[in-house]
Amino acid sequence: MALFEIVPNLSEGRDLTTIDAAVRAAEAAGARVLHRTSDATHHRSVLTIAGDARAVLDAGVAIAQVALERIDLRTHRGVHPRIGALDVLPFVPLRDASMDDAVRLAHEAGRRIWERVRIPSFYYGEAARRPERARLAHVRKGEFEGLVARANDPAWQPDVGDVARHERAGAIAIGARALLVAFNVELATGDLGVARAIARQLREGTGGLRTVRALGFALDAQRVQVSLNVTSYEAVPLYRLVELIRALASAHGVRVLRGELIGCLPRAAVEASARYYLGVAETPSLS
Amino acid sequence: MALFEIVPNLSEGRDLTTIDAAVRAAEAAGARVLHRTSDATHHRSVLTIAGDARAVLDAGVAIAQVALERIDLRTHRGVHPRIGALDVLPFVPLRDASMDDAVRLAHEAGRRIWERVRIPSFYYGEAARRPERARLAHVRKGEFEGLVARANDPAWQPDVGDVARHERAGAIAIGARALLVAFNVELATGDLGVARAIARQLREGTGGLRTVRALGFALDAQRVQVSLNVTSYEAVPLYRLVELIRALASAHGVRVLRGELIGCLPRAAVEASARYYLGVAETPSLS
Repeated sequence: MALFEIVPNLSEGRDLTTIDAAVRAAEAAGARVLHRTSDATHHRSVLTIAGDARAVLDAGVAIAQVALERIDLRTHRGVHPRIGALDVLPFVPLRDASMDDAVRLAHEAGRRIWERVRIPSFYYGEAARRPERARLAHVRKGEFEGLVARANDPAWQPDVGDVARHERAGAIAIGARALLVAFNVELATGDLGVARAIARQLREGTGGLRTVRALGFALDAQRVQVSLNVTSYEAVPLYRLVELIRALASAHGVRVLRGELIGCLPRAAVEASARYYLGVAETPSLS
Repeated sequence: MALFEIVPNLSEGRDLTTIDAAVRAAEAAGARVLHRTSDATHHRSVLTIAGDARAVLDAGVAIAQVALERIDLRTHRGVHPRIGALDVLPFVPLRDASMDDAVRLAHEAGRRIWERVRIPSFYYGEAARRPERARLAHVRKGEFEGLVARANDPAWQPDVGDVARHERAGAIAIGARALLVAFNVELATGDLGVARAIARQLREGTGGLRTVRALGFALDAQRVQVSLNVTSYEAVPLYRLVELIRALASAHGVRVLRGELIGCLPRAAVEASARYYLGVAETPSLS
């Protein structure tokens, strides 16, 4: 049976009862919640959910409804860019599933969410219907607050839904994409410029590593964060990224405090890092 | 169903057709061969085999027969100490199995091997019947060549079998023990003294890390090896061992060339090392 992953990003990282409700909604739809993480500074939570086509589709729609009922973007302030209460909903093909299957599910999710709760969606990644929307960063440009200003611009009409945004819940970026590693690194400095400089050096678009997207965020007076997404975790193994960040941070005289994985890591990526650091060619494992 | 692991160590690391035959014998007994590794300098091979009680018992007996038929210890020269053609045969309790079960299997294997091929055995580890035999190093003292000299010493009679050794195949150390991580590290020096000094610093008995056993071996003019066994891989994680070896080697001005795992690693040990080096609190993994 074809298996899929969805990774709903919700614009709520403080009231965890909302995330509990989203988890329950996913489970009631027959999907399995593999991981959850919430961050108060980002004011955002990320769920990693797996299941068959029907389960992840039902879970995605149910979570959009939870987001609508419990999150009001008009008063939402966090460091992470967002356009919606349910901000991003990617569909990822896992075992026995193709990218085409994931694209079909993404489009179907957009239609069902519009019919049910009247939140419009933009399709991104492999599900994009306009080439410029393939990049999630493009879709999120201007954020929730910018959606209204562009309401009459034909280039900014949602792919599904005939309003610029839902008043409280904004819009959703629904996509299809390959498995991705999301990884944050905290640096021991209050200087956001350092995080931004390192993010720029890591980012593919500005001479960094292949398929790496990176942003710098301020956390508090003592800490900043480099937030990373890597699609080609096989071509760009996590240890290379971590060692490069350590070197770049050290050039700024800044210490790396800790790393943090957002969601799940393919087991192969865990093993590749263990092999690198232990200096072994293989890590045959038991159980 | 109770699952066990056996880790037969055979005194043959050059003629791989012998190891092929041992693998086939294990599979014919209904066991699963998870890993195999052979080393020409040690002149030794290690198989990691899993199965239910009956399968691992039958596999152990069948491999003793293969060793008897194909290995002649009278002409065997390698850097690793050994007393037999099948040198060591530990039984390890895995899922749903107790150490008592593993001890019973070890004793039963000794009896069946003696009945079938007339190779005597010493019981070691948890299967030891004399306290001094709990330590494998004690059982292997004097090696194959020493077995005859001690034939009339009551302290050195095998636990099963009424001869000091089989003429060609020697004796077998059959044991029961907890899961163990076996790990070799190669150093870029021809000076065996460096490997031995580092082994001594790592070994529990001489002030090193808990449950660590370590030996130094000469490989060639450019390389020596520190060979390690760790039983408490949870208390003594692999990364601590690797980082300590790097520091000790660097104090000798010697570079670490590579590591090598002999047999399987519990998945928890792979993940613990990845977490340490990536600086993350958890590595939630997919598939």
